[in-house]
Amino acid sequence: MKLKNNSYKKELKLVSQLIKNEIVDEKIIQQLYDYIFKSSGKQLRPLLSLIASSPDKRKTRKRLKIAAIIELLHTATLVHDDVVDESPTRRGIDTINKNWTNSHGVLIGDFIYSKAFMLMIGLSDMEILDELSKATNDISKGELIQLGLIGKKDVSIHDLIKVSYFKTGRLFEASAKCGAILAKKDNKTYINNLSNFSKYLGIAFQIKDDMLDYSLNAKQLGKPTLQDLSEGKITYPFYFALKNSNIKDKKFLLSILGSKKHYKNSKIIEKIELLGGIKQTEELLKSYIAKSVSFAKKIDNEQIREEMLNLTQFSYNRTK
Amino acid sequence: MKLKNNSYKKELKLVSQLIKNEIVDEKIIQQLYDYIFKSSGKQLRPLLSLIASSPDKRKTRKRLKIAAIIELLHTATLVHDDVVDESPTRRGIDTINKNWTNSHGVLIGDFIYSKAFMLMIGLSDMEILDELSKATNDISKGELIQLGLIGKKDVSIHDLIKVSYFKTGRLFEASAKCGAILAKKDNKTYINNLSNFSKYLGIAFQIKDDMLDYSLNAKQLGKPTLQDLSEGKITYPFYFALKNSNIKDKKFLLSILGSKKHYKNSKIIEKIELLGGIKQTEELLKSYIAKSVSFAKKIDNEQIREEMLNLTQFSYNRTK
Repeated sequence: MKLKNNSYKKELKLVSQLIKNEIVDEKIIQQLYDYIFKSSGKQLRPLLSLIASSPDKRKTRKRLKIAAIIELLHTATLVHDDVVDESPTRRGIDTINKNWTNSHGVLIGDFIYSKAFMLMIGLSDMEILDELSKATNDISKGELIQLGLIGKKDVSIHDLIKVSYFKTGRLFEASAKCGAILAKKDNKTYINNLSNFSKYLGIAFQIKDDMLDYSLNAKQLGKPTLQDLSEGKITYPFYFALKNSNIKDKKFLLSILGSKKHYKNSKIIEKIELLGGIKQTEELLKSYIAKSVSFAKKIDNEQIREEMLNLTQFSYNRTK
Repeated sequence: MKLKNNSYKKELKLVSQLIKNEIVDEKIIQQLYDYIFKSSGKQLRPLLSLIASSPDKRKTRKRLKIAAIIELLHTATLVHDDVVDESPTRRGIDTINKNWTNSHGVLIGDFIYSKAFMLMIGLSDMEILDELSKATNDISKGELIQLGLIGKKDVSIHDLIKVSYFKTGRLFEASAKCGAILAKKDNKTYINNLSNFSKYLGIAFQIKDDMLDYSLNAKQLGKPTLQDLSEGKITYPFYFALKNSNIKDKKFLLSILGSKKHYKNSKIIEKIELLGGIKQTEELLKSYIAKSVSFAKKIDNEQIREEMLNLTQFSYNRTK
């Protein structure tokens, strides 16, 4: 990912360092902790927070701390997600539940969550605390709503958007919002523009994620292709394909949802594509990118505006 | 459990009500949430907090809120524990992981944790926030240490006490401490006496729990007998029995640890008893009850002192 301003790359490294430097006196915990943080992901959420808080460089330590807390919260959700989805790999390496057990995944996830809360409380900023704790609760809400939808065939586009917002958009939103609060506590316009921009970017990010799950190159993602489908999760490409299909196609699609039968991935993807599932998902993606851009354009700080517009481009084009 | 002052019973009902009144707008979440809170346990932790905070009756709303938060935190750990231990029943009813799935257990646990944090932040008391977030982190630390000990044969008494403190004593300690901070922020002696009393009571509570797991009447507990043993967890009765055993007994004991073979429960319990496992656990229990009592006696408020001494009696004598 290319950034306009290179200083953010340096700051992201400091954030990673801040996380890695947390030393745990118990061997088993240190081992799991190090394993989890030896590879880092795109770090988009801490980045959003760093960019949003950049107008106040005097608060650099606090800025880095908030970014680290956000990355910890995000990581805890990923570790629990991998248990829930029984995922064997993440970012190209074995998950905790694969390499150790589900129990390790549940407990180290709890450890990281509560660590994030401890650090958060050290910030002593009630507004930021409030936003982050609400966002954390909303993420689990999104995951639970999604779990409740598994096996259902009449999922609506409204359901899908709601899940995308809670499980992904919400933490994107909180990331930028907390950064913005730190830098410009009294500038409601700045805070609102950053929050909304980031919320829609997060939803778009999830839509793209769901699209990439139906791509033949999904292996680049470091996780198995068609994972959502095999878990019985209806996501955007499948939803649109199902909506556009005739009785025969519908029967086929529903038969492969959550099925352990091994159809050829390429055959399934071809079918979804043929039924317009990819094209319509791309249109939806474009509409959320556009919403995101519309708020980014309202940001009066030019440097931040350009950086954020750059991120929407990246999120739209990414192939992994 | 008999209390000296009946008003606490009324307050505990209000705490349960406070928890039950939390309405969630998503059906699946409401369903899981209601299921979890339809039965309540001993409510010892919220009770400790209510008693410790009782000197300041003007803060009743806040007192109830803290007690509710503590019960939420405790419940979240139980729900995750049941996933980790693959427990089928708790308090005599099916666990979430049994009645739904592990995924439901992980996610509703996260939901309840983050709910507790949201309510906590609403208290706007940094000292209480700090204590509760640290205690939550310590609980997961205790669970992880215990997980790391599974399969090990050279567990020390020091390891066992550490696990008992982190996974049980720590939240007991935080419960009384937060109550004490609320009532007498500047009275360090009061806060210390309450914290220490409660910490040792919690460790004693865990020792008794481990003892009850080796009782033939364990069904009263609402969970299977010899659950720890079958999970490969060395707890106090097994630890002492192993320590006292000759080569032949040692071989037998290690062969049943974590084994799926079905020996008769009564035979195993008889063996552990014969080897002094129960007697020595009882002695250890007595020593922690004594530590707890020694701090209770230092509490200058007579009503609170008597209530706490009463609780140590209950914890020592309980059969479920």
